Amino acid sequence: MITAMDVERAAARIAGRVRHTPVITLSEGDLGLSCPATLKLELLQHSGSFKPRGAFNRMLSAELPAAGVIAASGGNHGAAVAYAAQELGVPAEIYVPELTPKMKLDRIASYGAKVVRTGATYAEAFQASQAQQAETGALQVHAYDHQDVLAGQGTVGQEFEADAPGLTHLLVAVGGGGLIGGIAAWFGERVQVIAVEPELCPALHDALARGAPTEAPVGGVAADSLGARQVGGLMFDVARRHIRTAVLVPDEAIRAAQHAVWDRLRLVAEPGGATALAALLSGAWRPPAGARVGVLVCGANTDPATVTG
Amino acid sequence: MITAMDVERAAARIAGRVRHTPVITLSEGDLGLSCPATLKLELLQHSGSFKPRGAFNRMLSAELPAAGVIAASGGNHGAAVAYAAQELGVPAEIYVPELTPKMKLDRIASYGAKVVRTGATYAEAFQASQAQQAETGALQVHAYDHQDVLAGQGTVGQEFEADAPGLTHLLVAVGGGGLIGGIAAWFGERVQVIAVEPELCPALHDALARGAPTEAPVGGVAADSLGARQVGGLMFDVARRHIRTAVLVPDEAIRAAQHAVWDRLRLVAEPGGATALAALLSGAWRPPAGARVGVLVCGANTDPATVTG
Repeated sequence: MITAMDVERAAARIAGRVRHTPVITLSEGDLGLSCPATLKLELLQHSGSFKPRGAFNRMLSAELPAAGVIAASGGNHGAAVAYAAQELGVPAEIYVPELTPKMKLDRIASYGAKVVRTGATYAEAFQASQAQQAETGALQVHAYDHQDVLAGQGTVGQEFEADAPGLTHLLVAVGGGGLIGGIAAWFGERVQVIAVEPELCPALHDALARGAPTEAPVGGVAADSLGARQVGGLMFDVARRHIRTAVLVPDEAIRAAQHAVWDRLRLVAEPGGATALAALLSGAWRPPAGARVGVLVCGANTDPATVTG
Repeated sequence: MITAMDVERAAARIAGRVRHTPVITLSEGDLGLSCPATLKLELLQHSGSFKPRGAFNRMLSAELPAAGVIAASGGNHGAAVAYAAQELGVPAEIYVPELTPKMKLDRIASYGAKVVRTGATYAEAFQASQAQQAETGALQVHAYDHQDVLAGQGTVGQEFEADAPGLTHLLVAVGGGGLIGGIAAWFGERVQVIAVEPELCPALHDALARGAPTEAPVGGVAADSLGARQVGGLMFDVARRHIRTAVLVPDEAIRAAQHAVWDRLRLVAEPGGATALAALLSGAWRPPAGARVGVLVCGANTDPATVTG
């Protein structure tokens, strides 16, 4: 199982490659919050999501073949791998499913990567990328189920704690679980890490209920970033030890959170990026008395027209 | 002349009313920067600009009459006064010129203020507001030329220094000069505060060249936030003592900075909010060797469609 030590090593490895993203503390009442909350604005990371942390840690921990790297992604991981590959000077090939929004396709291409659009879901795009990887010998950079990826994403937790010490609860959105897995590995029992998923993408919720990763539905407004059909095995080992609460939020709560974040804070968060906050704003999760709450806002890659209307 | 002590008192007065906005440090090369730079993200302030700092300090320093408050504004100050009035439970009447964008009108109205649209420029709207003030007896909250407003805006500088100690140069956009006046009063000679204005709104540049506030043209993409016809007398006393460099940037540099900030950092900055950064990105101002550069990103109130295309 990955540990806080792995996260620390990842932080040293990727230092200078990723942005140290800021936090902002909002008062009770602000945005309609029922309690004060500290938001980490990881949506301001390179490529518009937290994903470069894991991508860099994976790529800097491996021998990079001349064929470069290959990845499958709903979009954000692909953009991060493309960005990291450009920075490290190797070619990248990114497989995305049909549902990936145009903005994410453009973002991936803007970093000079080759984009292949195939399959209805992330899982199908991943299968296609594996077949291609066997041909080219490129390094497969998994979107979540790899120890170096988890450890890299965990550096979000390390930064958050350094900038906002004393948090008791931390809300994190979950797709394949690489982000929350790394963060929970960092915090262990020091902070209660709360998983938040859309009702229409309940992969971790269902896995925890059944005691093992299991296939779950994929749908709704956040499917392009949180639509892994199944959480990773590595993250699940962390989750069953450290994650006690998995909250589901309806799509309307996610849209409302996106709107509040734009209207009152002037940030454009994509649906997956606003999902953790949606749990707090909608009351799907209610903080116990005395809680000091952190919320990770983890992705920005959406057409602003969808949140600013 | 206002002093650092006035800024400190303002900070104590408005604590809890304004957000402590975050900073983010970008590496050389990031966004095309020629040197590392620390950005203060004041565009995440309540109402989408730094203006609530001065508005709250002015209103909390005065007796608030039953008629409430009145202000004239290109938009951001009006939104801030409307927000502060709503928070403090008094009515607000805001005079805006015809050029004020719809988004800013909507924002002001969203805080429950009465909006009166009149005059071609801020100066004309201000005249109309003075006539109305004489009728109603409401408290006039000037957009920049009042000591409590300057001192309130100066709290941006105090926060910036606390979060990013050791800066040597700080780039700040200028309209009527309340913001840079307060900030320069805070820093004195400790940091070189660089004024940045659009070529089409050169009020401080012209005033410094002529040795006194003077009427200047008002035009271009940032006119709704930086289009004061003349800088305030209070700020000018500070400026001629502490501001040695006043840079002008063309509108194209402002648009390019807005685009870079969206494309690579996922922030929506309005033209006036991106003007300070435009000086650095365009090379209109070049940091001397060893400079540690701060940039204030001070406003977000624009239609995202104008920056994300």
